[in-house]
Amino acid sequence: MEEVWVTGAGMTRIGRRSEPLPELMAEAALAALAMAGLERPEAIVVAAMNPEEFVGDGNFASNVASHMGFADVPTLRVETATSSGAAAFYTGFAEVASGLCSTVLVVGGEKMTHIATPRVSELIGRSIDPYERSYGATMPALAALITRALMARHGVGEREIAAVAVKNHAHAARNPLAHFPTPVSMDEVMASRMVSDPLRLLHCCPISDGAAAVVLSDTRGPVRVAGVGQGTDTLALRHRHDLTSFRATQTAARAAFTMAGFGPARVDFAELHDAFAPFELIALEDIGLVPPGKSGTITLDGETALDGRLPINPSGGLKARGHPLAATGLAQIVECVWQLVGRAEGRQLNARVALAHSIGGLATNNWVTLLEASR
Amino acid sequence: MEEVWVTGAGMTRIGRRSEPLPELMAEAALAALAMAGLERPEAIVVAAMNPEEFVGDGNFASNVASHMGFADVPTLRVETATSSGAAAFYTGFAEVASGLCSTVLVVGGEKMTHIATPRVSELIGRSIDPYERSYGATMPALAALITRALMARHGVGEREIAAVAVKNHAHAARNPLAHFPTPVSMDEVMASRMVSDPLRLLHCCPISDGAAAVVLSDTRGPVRVAGVGQGTDTLALRHRHDLTSFRATQTAARAAFTMAGFGPARVDFAELHDAFAPFELIALEDIGLVPPGKSGTITLDGETALDGRLPINPSGGLKARGHPLAATGLAQIVECVWQLVGRAEGRQLNARVALAHSIGGLATNNWVTLLEASR
Repeated sequence: MEEVWVTGAGMTRIGRRSEPLPELMAEAALAALAMAGLERPEAIVVAAMNPEEFVGDGNFASNVASHMGFADVPTLRVETATSSGAAAFYTGFAEVASGLCSTVLVVGGEKMTHIATPRVSELIGRSIDPYERSYGATMPALAALITRALMARHGVGEREIAAVAVKNHAHAARNPLAHFPTPVSMDEVMASRMVSDPLRLLHCCPISDGAAAVVLSDTRGPVRVAGVGQGTDTLALRHRHDLTSFRATQTAARAAFTMAGFGPARVDFAELHDAFAPFELIALEDIGLVPPGKSGTITLDGETALDGRLPINPSGGLKARGHPLAATGLAQIVECVWQLVGRAEGRQLNARVALAHSIGGLATNNWVTLLEASR
Repeated sequence: MEEVWVTGAGMTRIGRRSEPLPELMAEAALAALAMAGLERPEAIVVAAMNPEEFVGDGNFASNVASHMGFADVPTLRVETATSSGAAAFYTGFAEVASGLCSTVLVVGGEKMTHIATPRVSELIGRSIDPYERSYGATMPALAALITRALMARHGVGEREIAAVAVKNHAHAARNPLAHFPTPVSMDEVMASRMVSDPLRLLHCCPISDGAAAVVLSDTRGPVRVAGVGQGTDTLALRHRHDLTSFRATQTAARAAFTMAGFGPARVDFAELHDAFAPFELIALEDIGLVPPGKSGTITLDGETALDGRLPINPSGGLKARGHPLAATGLAQIVECVWQLVGRAEGRQLNARVALAHSIGGLATNNWVTLLEASR
């Protein structure tokens, strides 16, 4: 298997955007190509969760490639719900690792803010098991169920959960591309309106537009892909053994660390899928970054803050950088790359190994990606 | 790059099906796994063009894997409009060729016959460039434009075009899984109702339900993947240099033959994307299987019939086997494999090298796959 390097990374500002989705994706892609010093990739992998219903276009890989002026570059679309960006990264990785391509542009994006929130919620809710959906389950409702179990069975407290949101908003305040670059206080989080008990508005990520892209290459670049791992689980929550940890994350992490040949202790910082604040606590333990039962207290103690021992979500995370679905898995990787090469002005860490963790659906299709600085 | 083999191939009967789509896909997948003698693949690649709107489900790779009892097997979805099955095959190929996986199940399917035809046409039409779509362009309308140019500029006659449909229906009559296993006469084709002048109903493929699957492996099997090539073109027809040949097919064929290390002369038979009968004539020349300007006459002369020099679409093609969108690219490969291993009872060819050709959108994202018998 060939070594694979990330030679470029770019993204748009995340938030409410008026540009058409292919234009946002071109903006991110051209930024990644510019950083890589590459005029034209050998292949393109496009991530979009549901362009047919969000923006009304199909054949979307060809649409995006044509829009970027790359109509003659081979392209395909990859989708695994909310982790589509990470899945596209893996597909590009396989194309380079196999020797099929020397350079691959991976670009993901989504545009949703022009659609009424209940409709967005309905469309995202199609990721849920049809039977559970038929009883009215929505993503926030199922996440609330999980959060309630976490509090009841593992003693996770409301302040520990709120601390995730407070920290990630504080990080986003240093990220000019974040959807919500605004600090929030513990009191504000805990007084924000209830979305699905016990989850409040400021525990939940926003609906965002945006795009992110990376360039993968078989020639040495500033960042090496050390490991990529995927993990999956049953579509139906009722078929799982455990509500308070995600097998899909555990499996993905194990696979990524096995490929990398090192363990969680080598990770200097991570971008974790905090679509709901408690999910960051679950991921910390599932990946093995902190011991079981400790994620809440170490978060409250500030260990996962920018100046802590193990910074988590320096970008602001899904919570505050924003969550443009298929862009998110790539936006996490962009943040990792920028941190590793010293381009994260205002929130720069001193780091060598980064981890990105993306959740597809309600943790049915998760990915862990390990990146290592070449220096 | 590792050698990649097809060790299993299976598909459902194509036509109007009442079963849910994941069930059709499981039927095809389990048949492919049975032929491969494999209980459980290491990874799954799912092809579906638009399950969100055709069947109302998202997160579809996880949905299908869960339904098959493979919730713990890594899975992702690949989409390139009507060539999604071929794109998924390529993705599985890359996973095995890179050494990332030893065995990959690739399964594609679509279910559309429960939806009113105008709505299906609208959904498929989203593959067309948005600007051209805004003027009312549909797939049959654009195909008719191309057909008209083919007749005017290259002297292709109505009987030559009709002969494609007559031949493919005759082949389908020997295929128990075909949507339309019924012969049609030249007169019937030429008297069938006009869909979009000069294309008549019996020049056009039907709307079909169905699924197809293959198992790819890094250990020697009965059929070797000799080459896989992709070609792309502008989304907009008005941006192309030529209407009467498809650059995307030409590029895909060149790439596949380069990987295989042999040329079109080695091909014993082919499955070509005849969504509209004239497209078979275009593909024959674009791939280099017949000299320019000869595809019409050799078809009329019976050279592409089952007992001809170069059998084309022994399965019946999209025209008569049917065209369940994302299943199609894989159904073509299933037919190739079955022919190469002697499982095509009733229409068995004596062949060693097979070619499958799949068109995505209006020839924006095309694939050519070359398969070779191991014996």
